[in-house]
Amino acid sequence: MKTINIALLGCGTVGGGVAQILLQLNHELNSRANANLVLKKIVDLYPQNACQRFNIPLDLFCGGGKNLSSHEAGSFIQEIIKSDDIDIIIETIGGDNDFVLNIALDTLKANKHFITANKALLAKYGKKIFDTAGDNKSLIGFEASVCGAIPIIKTIKESFTGDEIMSISGIFNGTSNYILTNMQKEGLEFKDALKAAQKNGYAESDPSLDINGGDAANKLIILIKLAFGIDLTIDKLFRKGIEDINKDDLDFAQEMNLTLKLICFAEKKEDEIYALVCPMMVKENNFLSKVNNATNAVQIINKYSGRHLLVGAGAGSLETASAIVSDIIFTTRYHASNFNKMKSSTVKLIDSQNFIFPYCIIFETEDVPGITGVITTAIGNQRINIDTVGHNRHNKEKAIFPIITMPCSMKQINAAIQEIKKIRPDIIINDPKIFPILN
Amino acid sequence: MKTINIALLGCGTVGGGVAQILLQLNHELNSRANANLVLKKIVDLYPQNACQRFNIPLDLFCGGGKNLSSHEAGSFIQEIIKSDDIDIIIETIGGDNDFVLNIALDTLKANKHFITANKALLAKYGKKIFDTAGDNKSLIGFEASVCGAIPIIKTIKESFTGDEIMSISGIFNGTSNYILTNMQKEGLEFKDALKAAQKNGYAESDPSLDINGGDAANKLIILIKLAFGIDLTIDKLFRKGIEDINKDDLDFAQEMNLTLKLICFAEKKEDEIYALVCPMMVKENNFLSKVNNATNAVQIINKYSGRHLLVGAGAGSLETASAIVSDIIFTTRYHASNFNKMKSSTVKLIDSQNFIFPYCIIFETEDVPGITGVITTAIGNQRINIDTVGHNRHNKEKAIFPIITMPCSMKQINAAIQEIKKIRPDIIINDPKIFPILN
Repeated sequence: MKTINIALLGCGTVGGGVAQILLQLNHELNSRANANLVLKKIVDLYPQNACQRFNIPLDLFCGGGKNLSSHEAGSFIQEIIKSDDIDIIIETIGGDNDFVLNIALDTLKANKHFITANKALLAKYGKKIFDTAGDNKSLIGFEASVCGAIPIIKTIKESFTGDEIMSISGIFNGTSNYILTNMQKEGLEFKDALKAAQKNGYAESDPSLDINGGDAANKLIILIKLAFGIDLTIDKLFRKGIEDINKDDLDFAQEMNLTLKLICFAEKKEDEIYALVCPMMVKENNFLSKVNNATNAVQIINKYSGRHLLVGAGAGSLETASAIVSDIIFTTRYHASNFNKMKSSTVKLIDSQNFIFPYCIIFETEDVPGITGVITTAIGNQRINIDTVGHNRHNKEKAIFPIITMPCSMKQINAAIQEIKKIRPDIIINDPKIFPILN
Repeated sequence: MKTINIALLGCGTVGGGVAQILLQLNHELNSRANANLVLKKIVDLYPQNACQRFNIPLDLFCGGGKNLSSHEAGSFIQEIIKSDDIDIIIETIGGDNDFVLNIALDTLKANKHFITANKALLAKYGKKIFDTAGDNKSLIGFEASVCGAIPIIKTIKESFTGDEIMSISGIFNGTSNYILTNMQKEGLEFKDALKAAQKNGYAESDPSLDINGGDAANKLIILIKLAFGIDLTIDKLFRKGIEDINKDDLDFAQEMNLTLKLICFAEKKEDEIYALVCPMMVKENNFLSKVNNATNAVQIINKYSGRHLLVGAGAGSLETASAIVSDIIFTTRYHASNFNKMKSSTVKLIDSQNFIFPYCIIFETEDVPGITGVITTAIGNQRINIDTVGHNRHNKEKAIFPIITMPCSMKQINAAIQEIKKIRPDIIINDPKIFPILN
């Protein structure tokens, strides 16, 4: 049986989990890989911490277990990349800076396989990294980069190959889903739900990337590359977070049998695609409306096989680590094959103003007679059909009410809002909130 | 680019779908496989039918398009198996007779790859077929054999390799799930729901394998082999169908926030496993309770990554065909690798009398005072804790009521029932129905 030597760069929450599984399940993993998998070297700035937390022998760490300066760690990493004795390098350092980018590129150029959970790096430099892998016949494993334990990468790469992916939607960020679930269940306002999430370990002290949709957007960018072959960057993506969702929004949703979720969505329309990350109202019969707390879910609609749903843990130490270990097995099994292609295509991104959905628009206006007439007339003037005008909460002398439209574009809605503002500049208190509705 | 020649045996609902996808998506599939995939030969008794239904050129059929006798078809198949010009053989004939078994074995012995949707064949002869593949370094693709389009085979084989599967549960038969959903929604009795399913194309004229759990059991046997390495046969499996489920059972379930589903379940308990196919009551917070109509779902609980759910279409022409085509791509990509192992282990099956669950027992007794006391005392004598004694429907002079137990064994429950029958042989009208409850 051949031997595959593995180096692990970074031994924090995810890396430590990888080391733990590799050591605990060693016998079983060797049999699955048909190879001796040897965790040969670990580089981490604070080996003692990692060693205690994950029960890893100290002598696996470069430097013999003493703390390393960044400079020392960098040297050890360069040594590993140059070594003939390492086959697979696992990067669990994180971040999208040049230091980590160069680790990826140098590893691939050295004809070693590169496995990572780093969604920010792949979303930012995916094209460069995938192209380098292709040029050097090295493999990249990135199952752990999208929705942690959910095996969506291999499902798209290896299982949906007999079909054509038409759309991807899902809940890709556990923190924001936990917050929205808690707001709904406990009737909390956003800031209190955020505090509760932080207290319960579901949100970090700086939660910005989770709540502004940035983290979810990175994952969507990776899946769009995989499914549709398009290289997007985060600035091109229509993106909104959950920071200004309030209790009223959730209540309106519930009244209309809808559930408000932070949704990632991409859909192919002939040679163009929609792509957005934003709070959407999800219809009751869509499974995504039932995915609560920190759980993640991905829904794929295929041309031939229809609707698929994958649900699972989107984060966590051992959860994410298990996905990385599955990449080690896959790479070991199949690296000898000559298949190493990343899809690429000329499909174009559609401007978000042209996204067609049914929309839920929540108006906040002066509570005076005649408002509904003005607003619905303006909407009608844009040739938008109205599905429902929801119950008006006369709240603190304001009128707050939702209008659900039939499918139309964001551009039509914005034109209607401009018209309302022009005719009655006095009545609109805040810009209406606009939520696409997911079927 | 190398060429991979494919022969298709059987061109009915599934085989025809395979031909259709191979022809429609040819360019895209070649790029995914990094090979020219050529559908070279088709064997079917009635080419004209297949040709019209799936728009397949008649000249692909052996015999030039004329109807074949079984004998002629058999000769063409033997020719194909012997031919140097065929790389992959797809079997969509169905059945678990010697004719089909020999096609599988001969194909593998001829060092060709074998792809099938045939769950009955694999459940019955899995060990023989997988061993033959291993001995001859040929690959078997059987993604389509379990839950149609749901990519559960590759998910277990290639994605959950960094983890340890602890349990498998799911809804593996669309027909029975459609019937149960319809009974619940429309308040139908079993025989009317079955008729409706037949009328709407969700059940065949002979629905026995679907409603007696046989079809689901075949799929569970395949997944148990894959996940736990055990070779089971259908006669070893605890199995019950949905034939004697009635409206009362569903109503009781609903009253207790449970949903009655035909569940396949297997769980590892150290060196032994549970395995059963039977109607179970599913708790509300378990996603399986929300999977309705003909949809299939598989739930896997892993040691490190926790609970996963996959939901999708369990049957259908193009749905199942897309899974077969994904096997063609996988085989073409990776057949050069030397990985070709099927897990095998010494794990033992636990006797169904020792399965521990909370149970829901539905009693049907004479409607006379004192019954509850007799029954609950007998249950207590077996050291079973009672969770709930449900609402008694005094129906047509019978008492019908459910008792929900805390976790206990089937053996304890049966002993309690024996005791009740002994003490009061006069009161039990029908043997109580016993449903395990799924958390």
